[in-house]
Amino acid sequence: MSNFTKTGKKIIAIGRNYVEHAKELGNAVPSKPFFFLKPTTSYLESGNNIEIPKDSVVHHEVELGVVIGKNGRNIPESEAMSYVEGYCLALDMTARNLQDEAKKKGHPWSISKGFDTFTPVSKFIPKDLIRDPNDVTLWLKVNQIMTQNGSTSDMLFKIPTLINFVSSIMKLEEGDVILTGTPKGVGPIFPGQVVKGGLKLNNHADNIVEFEFG
Amino acid sequence: MSNFTKTGKKIIAIGRNYVEHAKELGNAVPSKPFFFLKPTTSYLESGNNIEIPKDSVVHHEVELGVVIGKNGRNIPESEAMSYVEGYCLALDMTARNLQDEAKKKGHPWSISKGFDTFTPVSKFIPKDLIRDPNDVTLWLKVNQIMTQNGSTSDMLFKIPTLINFVSSIMKLEEGDVILTGTPKGVGPIFPGQVVKGGLKLNNHADNIVEFEFG
Ligand SMILES: [Mg+2]
Ligand SMILES: [Mg+2]
Ligand SMILES: [Mg+2]
Repeated sequence: MSNFTKTGKKIIAIGRNYVEHAKELGNAVPSKPFFFLKPTTSYLESGNNIEIPKDSVVHHEVELGVVIGKNGRNIPESEAMSYVEGYCLALDMTARNLQDEAKKKGHPWSISKGFDTFTPVSKFIPKDLIRDPNDVTLWLKVNQIMTQNGSTSDMLFKIPTLINFVSSIMKLEEGDVILTGTPKGVGPIFPGQVVKGGLKLNNHADNIVEFEFG
Repeated sequence: MSNFTKTGKKIIAIGRNYVEHAKELGNAVPSKPFFFLKPTTSYLESGNNIEIPKDSVVHHEVELGVVIGKNGRNIPESEAMSYVEGYCLALDMTARNLQDEAKKKGHPWSISKGFDTFTPVSKFIPKDLIRDPNDVTLWLKVNQIMTQNGSTSDMLFKIPTLINFVSSIMKLEEGDVILTGTPKGVGPIFPGQVVKGGLKLNNHADNIVEFEFG
């Protein structure tokens, strides 16, 4: 599964899974999970450049990605963690002006979320390295200024709930990734800026992974 | 590419590409194309049963599917048809009540469009068999009553325009499918009903493909 960006077919991205982030965009806090799909053509590996499409305001959303290790439908919460093979640090890049327009019109979000390079990811993190995925810090700096610095302990819906919910609708397959939502602090990036992020266990100093994009 | 349901990674579904269909749902006719993504786990082959999720009103939308034969980004309209390997007849099944709710809230459409079995398809149709994809009839019967019977000549945006538009946002890959929108006559199906459809060249009697679902 270290090659999930090549073999995976689905990226399932959860919306508004952190209360403070829902509020910062003026959105209601959801009473049950919801999600959208991103194409796997949007994956980008560390060291590469994020595209800023013409006339777009592109926001970063740093997120914990859950990499699925085996196929399943209607997975009970109690068994959900056995479907997890590992994790990645991810950015759910969003053309915010296009998303705002889509929301107003009741249109799908797919275009605003789906440009090539709009899902930058770290290398694969084996499950063993993160004993408790609800106790992890995700941080992001834009040109060395910290913009996001949140803990997965603030996730509204936890990973087993998300796996249960998504798999009640669509079969999960080996290599699929669930993006679990972003903590507060989203904001724009502009051409030429450097985006750097990391993931570490809470109360630990060292990052388990880092990534950097132009 | 006859195995596009196994190897393909993206299903890109165009919304409101027939004026009469946009009107029947009370929607505005779009001034440029828009689309949403469906997961490949929603493919269903002829002879199988379409799931009706609990508390859902599930509508049929019969559509021409375009099967992509090679990878490309920013494909010019003039070269677009060389990226087409063939076609399929498809249903873009839609949990209409969930979609209506999503539209009202400005939420993504992915759940309402993404259940397993929500993209029933025919077998692969090699490109040679359809000289002019803008001159094809798509029909659908529910329990032997004709509900949809439209011609692709009524598509608002033609295939080269769609390929150019989609590939300006995301790379198209071999095995990807573009669903080109539905003509008027969409409506609900209920458990136990039989859905039968076909695709034929205009002014020809024989179907090139047929499919049937429970
Ligand atoms: Mg969507
Ligand atoms: Mg996000
Ligand atoms: Mg449709």
